[in-house]
This record gives sequence, structure tokens and C-alpha cells, in this order.
Amino acid sequence: MKIPVAILGATGSVGQYFISLLENHPWFEIKALFASKSYDTYAATWRATLPRPNWLNDATVTNTQVDKIIKSGARIVFSALPGELAGSIESALQSKGIAVFSNASAHRMDGDVPIIIPEINSDHFSLQTGKKGILIANSNCTTAGLVMGLAPLMPLGIKSVRLATYQALSGAGYPGVPSMDILGNVIPHIGGEEEKIETESRKILGNLENGSINPLNADIQASVFRVAVANGHMESIFVELDTTISASDLQSLYKNFEIPEVVSSLPSTPFATFKIFDHPSRPQPIKDCMEGKGMTVSIGSLKARGTSVSMKLLVNNVIRGAAGGSVQNAELALQKGLIKQ
Amino acid sequence: MKIPVAILGATGSVGQYFISLLENHPWFEIKALFASKSYDTYAATWRATLPRPNWLNDATVTNTQVDKIIKSGARIVFSALPGELAGSIESALQSKGIAVFSNASAHRMDGDVPIIIPEINSDHFSLQTGKKGILIANSNCTTAGLVMGLAPLMPLGIKSVRLATYQALSGAGYPGVPSMDILGNVIPHIGGEEEKIETESRKILGNLENGSINPLNADIQASVFRVAVANGHMESIFVELDTTISASDLQSLYKNFEIPEVVSSLPSTPFATFKIFDHPSRPQPIKDCMEGKGMTVSIGSLKARGTSVSMKLLVNNVIRGAAGGSVQNAELALQKGLIKQ
Amino acid sequence: MKIPVAILGATGSVGQYFISLLENHPWFEIKALFASKSYDTYAATWRATLPRPNWLNDATVTNTQVDKIIKSGARIVFSALPGELAGSIESALQSKGIAVFSNASAHRMDGDVPIIIPEINSDHFSLQTGKKGILIANSNCTTAGLVMGLAPLMPLGIKSVRLATYQALSGAGYPGVPSMDILGNVIPHIGGEEEKIETESRKILGNLENGSINPLNADIQASVFRVAVANGHMESIFVELDTTISASDLQSLYKNFEIPEVVSSLPSTPFATFKIFDHPSRPQPIKDCMEGKGMTVSIGSLKARGTSVSMKLLVNNVIRGAAGGSVQNAELALQKGLIKQ
Amino acid sequence: MKIPVAILGATGSVGQYFISLLENHPWFEIKALFASKSYDTYAATWRATLPRPNWLNDATVTNTQVDKIIKSGARIVFSALPGELAGSIESALQSKGIAVFSNASAHRMDGDVPIIIPEINSDHFSLQTGKKGILIANSNCTTAGLVMGLAPLMPLGIKSVRLATYQALSGAGYPGVPSMDILGNVIPHIGGEEEKIETESRKILGNLENGSINPLNADIQASVFRVAVANGHMESIFVELDTTISASDLQSLYKNFEIPEVVSSLPSTPFATFKIFDHPSRPQPIKDCMEGKGMTVSIGSLKARGTSVSMKLLVNNVIRGAAGGSVQNAELALQKGLIKQ
Repeated sequence: MKIPVAILGATGSVGQYFISLLENHPWFEIKALFASKSYDTYAATWRATLPRPNWLNDATVTNTQVDKIIKSGARIVFSALPGELAGSIESALQSKGIAVFSNASAHRMDGDVPIIIPEINSDHFSLQTGKKGILIANSNCTTAGLVMGLAPLMPLGIKSVRLATYQALSGAGYPGVPSMDILGNVIPHIGGEEEKIETESRKILGNLENGSINPLNADIQASVFRVAVANGHMESIFVELDTTISASDLQSLYKNFEIPEVVSSLPSTPFATFKIFDHPSRPQPIKDCMEGKGMTVSIGSLKARGTSVSMKLLVNNVIRGAAGGSVQNAELALQKGLIKQ
Repeated sequence: MKIPVAILGATGSVGQYFISLLENHPWFEIKALFASKSYDTYAATWRATLPRPNWLNDATVTNTQVDKIIKSGARIVFSALPGELAGSIESALQSKGIAVFSNASAHRMDGDVPIIIPEINSDHFSLQTGKKGILIANSNCTTAGLVMGLAPLMPLGIKSVRLATYQALSGAGYPGVPSMDILGNVIPHIGGEEEKIETESRKILGNLENGSINPLNADIQASVFRVAVANGHMESIFVELDTTISASDLQSLYKNFEIPEVVSSLPSTPFATFKIFDHPSRPQPIKDCMEGKGMTVSIGSLKARGTSVSMKLLVNNVIRGAAGGSVQNAELALQKGLIKQ
Repeated sequence: MKIPVAILGATGSVGQYFISLLENHPWFEIKALFASKSYDTYAATWRATLPRPNWLNDATVTNTQVDKIIKSGARIVFSALPGELAGSIESALQSKGIAVFSNASAHRMDGDVPIIIPEINSDHFSLQTGKKGILIANSNCTTAGLVMGLAPLMPLGIKSVRLATYQALSGAGYPGVPSMDILGNVIPHIGGEEEKIETESRKILGNLENGSINPLNADIQASVFRVAVANGHMESIFVELDTTISASDLQSLYKNFEIPEVVSSLPSTPFATFKIFDHPSRPQPIKDCMEGKGMTVSIGSLKARGTSVSMKLLVNNVIRGAAGGSVQNAELALQKGLIKQ
Repeated sequence: MKIPVAILGATGSVGQYFISLLENHPWFEIKALFASKSYDTYAATWRATLPRPNWLNDATVTNTQVDKIIKSGARIVFSALPGELAGSIESALQSKGIAVFSNASAHRMDGDVPIIIPEINSDHFSLQTGKKGILIANSNCTTAGLVMGLAPLMPLGIKSVRLATYQALSGAGYPGVPSMDILGNVIPHIGGEEEKIETESRKILGNLENGSINPLNADIQASVFRVAVANGHMESIFVELDTTISASDLQSLYKNFEIPEVVSSLPSTPFATFKIFDHPSRPQPIKDCMEGKGMTVSIGSLKARGTSVSMKLLVNNVIRGAAGGSVQNAELALQKGLIKQ
């Protein structure tokens, strides 16, 4: 018997990806949709690049109220709520015993809320030990790519990181970026994004000490840009390590990167954590964004020079960096026995 | 009486900008055009965003041969030749007493050929002292923006630079990037570009010692990307300095940056060397590319943190970074008495 | 002494073009700006491709109320109001003796409000004879191009017209079309546009009979599409005439098209009404949109086959099809003595 | 046992779609690839949006010579050759007993070569009766969409057609349209396209009389434009019929359009010949291009007014309009016993 789940913000961009990814999920079953709008019959408002289930034509979309969500019988709630709403609703649901997996930024930097990337920091779940429900954040979409790119380098000691981004339009939700602003252009600004990347990545890569997280002690600076790409954030990453590394050892770090066995067996975990390209013209958003059903992180131009490492990385911002990451978090929480049925 | 000039590669993208910029120039007069193609009457092949002079309808475009160029009577030659041709033709012209100003990369790293940016290193002209003609390079288009962004920081000591680029389509010439490759995409590769940026910028910012250039001793790493923008290269620049700097001192360095008086008075030198934006969403290629007729360098998000400085810079790659830079170099050479009339 | 004018909707897209076009106008002077927003200092909200006057940094933008507009002392009001507001405000202003030139669609199909294109139907002004103020509409942006393309064919009798459009993003105002909807796409729908084109063009090309307009008796069908172009509507026009015409006679009709002398001498009337291209790859939005400062209509692929005529036409939707058309209408009204000073 | 097939022009855009569509085909098996280039290991040159089979890494691509093609043992040859090569090679192959299915335009207007669209004119195969091999053309990509849109109207008598197109970049092959020409632009010209559409569509919709084709006697005029879309040609179609039709009868014509039973059962024939949209904002290239695996033709804004019918149609130019159409033709020829094994 599958676990009943609800989706908040179900008609927005991330909400649509939740629906697609949870359709035919082996462990979860969509029980209820919550949003301020409804789905139209002619699918004019479907914008996800994954298929739209036909049952949406007759689906009821309920107004987002805590008591209605509780009454729906969902044991797991996936939240794609806008920041201003997410804060109180997610907390209320958790206090009622629900397992909440959130894409919102509202609680990410709370001391007792972990930002989980299963391949990297599944031990951070323990921040939520003893709570009535659980509240698990996933990171900002750009952060998800960055920390995946940095994780294999952690054993060498990361001193500093410089990141420049090429972020897709879908990262801004809908309607998002006006076309007149971005056609043939690059916009060097996304409100609040640089700070999120810098603080979240240090938290995710931090150590759990005495029940709280000690953020990674590294100098991380991000410089973000919006580009005219539909899906897939590119990231130009420069790292300074504590030690030198050779080109071949660097390749090995990524090709042999190990993830916990329990993570490997999750339905949403891709066959390959990384796809490493030798050809310098790859990865590219339109060609590589759906690698591993959007969960594999693609890396090209991986270079070592002394203590410096650089790479060009592509992360699917709507799947790995949003809905897919949340679903994978829920799968891991279930396997770890953290979800009450 | 104006000095007669010739343009090589006159029908290509940079060649077209040479024509526009030299039309009605106070000191120079176009005497002859050289290229392998001709201009069509209907202007279907005019791609520069500056106006196309009507006299091109009847202009003769001559095949690029050294003796024909000499016979044209031009005292100055602007070269927009492709790399493989530029090497021998430019050298041959110089040896005949011509003043050659080149956009080609062929001779840039020659020990006796300076890469001149008038605002920065006009003393490097002395590398050409005693030659029959002169051969002056201007830098790669991305390099031009980078060194302008770095120049005000030189007094503080530049230890390292990390650069990620957002390069316009016009940088690839014509036909250049196929539309199927770049529509809705970002391409993380431009052949040879990263190496050019790293070596050229260290040369331009280097010191003249005993008649040769001692390149800047800084660790410069570039990571280049092509984006779907017509004109204007954006650059995300991270710098490590030898000393700390405050935010207000940093602003002052750019606002008070001084250039040699002889350079200020050149026709192609813009009124403002830099345009510094406070609003974080600027500069943008489509809005700011033509600042100072394409010669002003625009900078936004200028930030200081300890010994770190970062900025988002926009350079007009076809004007400041190509044809406009060459014309400005010729103006300076003339003022310095380096052009034989 | 210049005539004081006010702009309504002054911060929107069309409003910005009004400001640029009226800056340094020989006859008019901007006295007041009205809108629901204000201009920001950093010009982040300036989206017109024409220059932004520096005085906007200190400009007062007043809330749009009839009494405040009257108090401003403006004798002419240019309205770029959204449809829902325009109806009542424009009527109220007219009843107070103001000369209103409107881009809004609210009154276009009113029996006593002419839609004026000076080159075509300046006699329609008489619909407003005897009013206290005057209220003059200009057409929908696409209609402006269509009727200009049809006008030279009128003497031959127009039986039917089939029109397919390629409409620029700026036609939707700001924020307008979300980038996720249009990047790499074509949208076959613009709400209400097809009906506007069909009814307005028949009105503009209609005859004045006994004080009202008898619309052109022709079967006009439009099929509209939005494309990823910043400015400039392309139109594919097929016409059936009452008589046959030869290719050379067709060319002559456009090259010799005569406009009233009073119209020729208006400041906003372009030197050439039409630019006719022989090369089949022209006109194109990015190359030809600013022909005649945006007031010339560009036509290519002009073909005659029996009683059929076809052409590919480009109209600048924000200048000729909006703000520029209104300014030209005001100039003509002034010359005709219709504006009380 | 599957029939061995060869692909000519196997590395070009259409050739790549042939490979994808024939991978795991129930009746055909790729035996040999011919082209002037080879496939690179890193797949940098794969541009089809369908998956690239891994065996291409080790595939041999042979130079296109008639004797080598014969020796390959292929009984069917799919040709994606450029026009200039296609003429002689395809004829030579046919004369050797091969069944040739061609995307090239070289032989389309030959009197004895049919242009087949299985849903419309499978009887035209008889033009090839008695030949040693067979040579079957499929139409120009835009034509394929147009005739599908017209076919249901044939019983009502088609008097005239006016067509304006919005053609995707992939229709130009690779490298095709330079990005500088099309970014933010529309190009009103594709060489030779309008004539192809007009003559081919009349041939396909023509009647077979005494062993030759009597083209449809209708006045068809096309006006073509290139837009910045990756895949999927939009078409704005206006038709004049001999008789009037009601809106509901018009809908019925498309919803009840019947195709021959033998065609219905072909592997490449889509479940739905047409997808009819009620919502006016559809179809759109990025949303609807892959309907029916690229073989269904999507139609929106289907309108009747008196004797006039209009619609907005989308055809997948690389599948239905190219490789997919050819494969479907081969399937039909096989079922009709026209291919020698």
C-alpha cells in the first residue's frame, strides 16, 4: 500500500514537477492537491517539460489551509509554496505529525531544519530527532548543483570557492522573467540568490556537532546571472584546496565518488551521480539537462592546476534542484524510518 | 589633410565596424578596402549595428595582396584578417613602413609586439622603437574588458583572478555560431579563448623592463561561455588582492581612475572610462552595450570583502574589444609621432 | 512658445516612447506625467529603445486623476492608459476642452471618434467637428501597418485581405509575455487582436458619408501570432483586387504614393512613407525597424499575380503603431487648427 | 527477419532522425550508414532531439558511392542527401532494383515519381509500377503540414489557399541559419521554398489520370518566414472553398477524417492523425511538436466563415515532414508488396 501524499503550490512550476514525478511512484500516491488556482481543462497552464497526467482534467485543487491538508489524510506533504506562505503552514503541519518536504526557503536556515542532499549529508536528518512530524528542506536550486560539485573535493580541504552562474528561466517560477528583459540579454541579478548559495552550501557541507551544524569553514562567493535558457543551471566553479591534486586523481575523485548504499537504492537516485564529459563543449542545458532523468549532475572542463580546481557544471534546477530533490529526500526519510504511517 | 588608411578583412564583422568608425573620422580617411568578398548592393551582408555608409554600394573591394595594399597609398592599415592570413601579411606590411593596427591574434604574443590599451599601457609602444613600420596589436575582446576592470586595482597588488564569461555571438564572427546550437542554450567552450585571456592580460598589465615585457605575476584563470546575446561580453570577475580594501575606497578607485592626458584627448576615448552602476540588475548587454559609443566599460555589483573584490563587467566586444580599440590605438600612435606620413 | 502637453500612463512602455519622442519636439513641451507608478533613479524600469532623458531622475509622476490633469495646464493629452481606465478619463478630458490623442482601444470604434493615420484619412477628423475638446484615436499597432500596406491599392478596389502576423513582444506592454512561454516558441494567440485588426482597418479605409464613416466593404481576415522579437511587427499580407495589376505598376503604386502636403511637412512624418526592398530577405525586425526613425513602413517581396497582390511588411509597433502615430496625429490636428491654445 | 536498410546523408540532421526512428523498428534494420563525415565519439555532432544509439560510437560511416551502397546488401535506402548529390545517386540505385525513399527535392517533380503522404494519396504509388526498383519522394517539410491540413477539405472543393509560415531552424539543416541572423528576429525568406510548397501540394492533392498526375486546380500562394524555434513549423492557412460550411461540420471533417486501413496499421502512423485544439493559444512548437511521436498534425483556431476556412497548424518538420514521413512511406510500400526482398 502506497503512502498518501499531498502537494502544496500544486499549480506552480515546481508543483507541476511534483505531480509528474509522483505519478506512478512506487512508494507514494498523490492524495490531494492544494493551491490558490485550479488546473484548466485545456492544459494551457501546464509548463513542466514532463508529461501532464490526464487525470488533472478532473482533479480538485483545494485552497491551501492547514486543516484541509490534515483532513486529506496525507502523511507526507511536498511544499512548493511561495516563501511568505511557507513559513507558518509548514511549521503547523509538522506540529501535527506530518512529514513535510519543502522547496521553500523559509525554514532552510533554521537551526533544527536540515537541508538534505541524500548523496552528501543524510546524517543531518538527526537535527529533527524527537519532533512530532518532520520538516526537511531541500536547497536552493543553484546550491544543489554547487554542493554536488564540491562534495568529492571535501577530503582535500576546501579553502575557497568562486562561483558564477548561468541560471535558467524556470528557476524564477511563473510568470517569472518578462520576455522583454531577457531576450538576447543576460541579467546580472537574482534577488537574494547569492546569499542563499553562500550560506546554504556551507550548512549542507557542514559537520554535525553536538546536535547542531557547524558550517563548512570556507570562503564561498557567488555571482549570479539569469540567461535565456528554459531549464538547467550552468555553473562555473573555481575552488582552492588545501592540497595540490593531479588531473588524473581529480578525475578519479568524481568517477569513484561513493554514496551511501541506502541512497543508491532509492527510486529517485540516478544510476550515475555524475556524468563527466571529456569534450570541452559539454555539458549544455539543451542537450544534457535530462541526464539521469534530471537527477544526474553533469560536469565538464574538470581541471586541476596546483591547488586549484575548476569545472563547468550543469544541474537540472527543477528536478535535482527542486521537486526531484524533495521526492528523493522523502524516499530516504521513509527508508530511515522517519515517516509515521 | 587626413591620413589615408586601408582596411583588411573589410567585409567581415570587425571590418564593417572599422568602416563605420572611420567614416567621418577627424584624422583618418578610408582609402581602400581589402577582402576576399565584395559588398552587395542590397546590404544583405551588412551586420554591424552601426550605420552602413551609402558609398559602399559603389565601393571596390580588392583582393588582399601585400603589393596592392602598398599601392593603395594607405599609411595606416587596420587588419581584421583571420588568424591564418594575418601573420605573414601584417609582417610584410610593417617591413614596408606601414603602421599596422591588428585585431588578429597572430602576433599578439610576439616579444616585440605590444598589445595596447591606451588607458593602461601606452608606454608599451616602445617595444616597436626603431622598426621601419609599426605593428600594434589589440587584445582579444574579452581580455580588453578584463584588463580594464583590473587596471584600477593594480596599485593594491593583484594576487589572483577568477573570470567567468558570458560572450556575445558577434565575438565569433560570421556566420559564427549556428542558431541550432545556441537558441535557449549556453555553450561552455570557445576554442583557445581561455588561454588567450590568461596570457594576454598578464602581458598588458606587465612591466616594461630593459626593452621587454615582464608579465604580471598573478594567477589568472578564465572559464568562458557563449550565450545568446548579439553584442556585449559580460564578465564575472573575482580578484584577490595583496591588501584589504573598503567598499568606499573601492568605489573611489574606479570613479577617480586617471588616464594619461594624451589619451583623454583622442577622438575615440570615451568621456567616461567606466560607468559604475549602483543598481544590481545592471549592466546588461542590451541596455548598456553602447555606453560611450561602445568604448566605456560598464561595471556593476562592485564589492569588497577583506582582500577580495568582485564585479560584473560589460565590454562592447566589437567596439572597445575590437575595431574601436584599434582605431584608438592608431590615434594614440599618431599623437605620439609613431606614424610616418 | 510651445504647447504644454501631458502624458497619461507615462511609466508604461508606450508612455516611455511618448517621453522620448516629445523630448525636444519643435511644437510641444512635456508639462506633466501621470501614472500609477514613479520612475526609479537607476532607470531599471526604462525599457524603450530610445534615449531616456536625464530630467526623469527628478520628475514628478502624478496619480492619474482628471482634475489634476486639467490643473497641469496641458492643452494636449497623450494617453497610453490601459483600456479599462481610458474610457472614462479620456471622455472627461475631452468634455473639458482638452485635445486627447489616445493609444487605448476604448473609444476606437465609437461612431464619432476617428482613427487617424495622417497619410491616409486626415479627412476623418471632421467626425469631431463641433466638440468642446477633441478625442482622436490611433489604431492598434498591427492595423497601422496593414492599412499603410493597403492604402496604395485602394484605387484598384480591395475585395479581400488575408493577414498573418509576427508580432513583437513590446506590443504586449510590460511585463507582458512571460519568457518561459516564448523562448524558442511561437504563440498563435493575442486576445482580441484579430477582431481589432479586422474592424479598425475597415473603418480607417472607409468613406466619410453624411458625417459618419462607411467602412470599407472588403473581407478582411487576420490570423495573429506572437514571436520572440523585441520590436517590429512583421505582416504577411495577401490581397485580392477588383482588377489585375502588373508587377511594375504595383511597384509604381508604392513608389509614387502621394500624401497630403500638410502631412508631408509634419515633424513626425518620415522622409519616405515606404521603403521598398528588392532583396527577398528584407525587411527584418532587427535591421529595419528604425527606418525613418520608426515611422517609415518597410515592404519586401511585393508580388503581383493576376488580381492577387502579396507582400511582407514591417511596421514599428511602438513608434508608427503607437506613440509616434499619436504625436503625428497631434501635429496634424494643430496644423488643421483643431487644437485650442 | 528484418529488411536491411541503408541511410544516405547519415550524419546530417535528417540522417540522425532516420537513425533514431529506425532503431528498434519492427520491420527494418539499419545495415549501413553513408555520408561524407563520421560520427564523433563524444557525440558533439548529434543534434536530433531523439536519443542517440550508443552503437554509433563504433559505427562505420562509408563514403556515399553507388557501388558501396549496393554491396551493403540494403534492400531499402533512405536518402537525406543534399539536392545536388541526390539526383544521380538515387536514380542509379533505383535502376539497380533498390527501393529508394528520399527527402531530397531532386526528383519530386519528376512525372513518374510520386510524392507520397500515406494518409492522403497512397494510390500515387502506381506511378512507379513496372520499374526495376522504386523511387518515392516525400514532400518538403512545410508542404507535408499544408496538405494534411487541406486533405479533409477536399470533398468541399478547394478554390484557393493562402499560407504564411513560421519555420523552425532545423528545417535549414546544419549549420543552417547563423545565430546572429535570427536571434530576436524573423527572416522573411527561404530560398525556393514558396515555389516548392505551391507545386508539391498541388501534385500531392492531384488526381491520377491515365498513369499521370493531374495537379489540383487551386490557386495556392505561400509566404514563408524563418523564426527562432528549434523544431516544428507553424502554418497560418486560409482556404476558400467552393461551398459554405458550418463551424460544427468543419470540426467533424477533421475529427472524422478517415485514412486507409492499411495505413492505420503501419508502425509509424500515429494513433491520431490530427490533434484539434479548442484553446486558442495552442498548438505551440515547444509544447505540441512531439504529439504522436512527431507524426500527429496539430491544429488550432479552426474557423469557418461562409466559404472561408482558416486554421493554425503545427507540423513536426523533422519527423512528419522528413524522416518519419519517409519511414512511413517505406512501411506502406512494403505492405503493398512494392519492395523486393
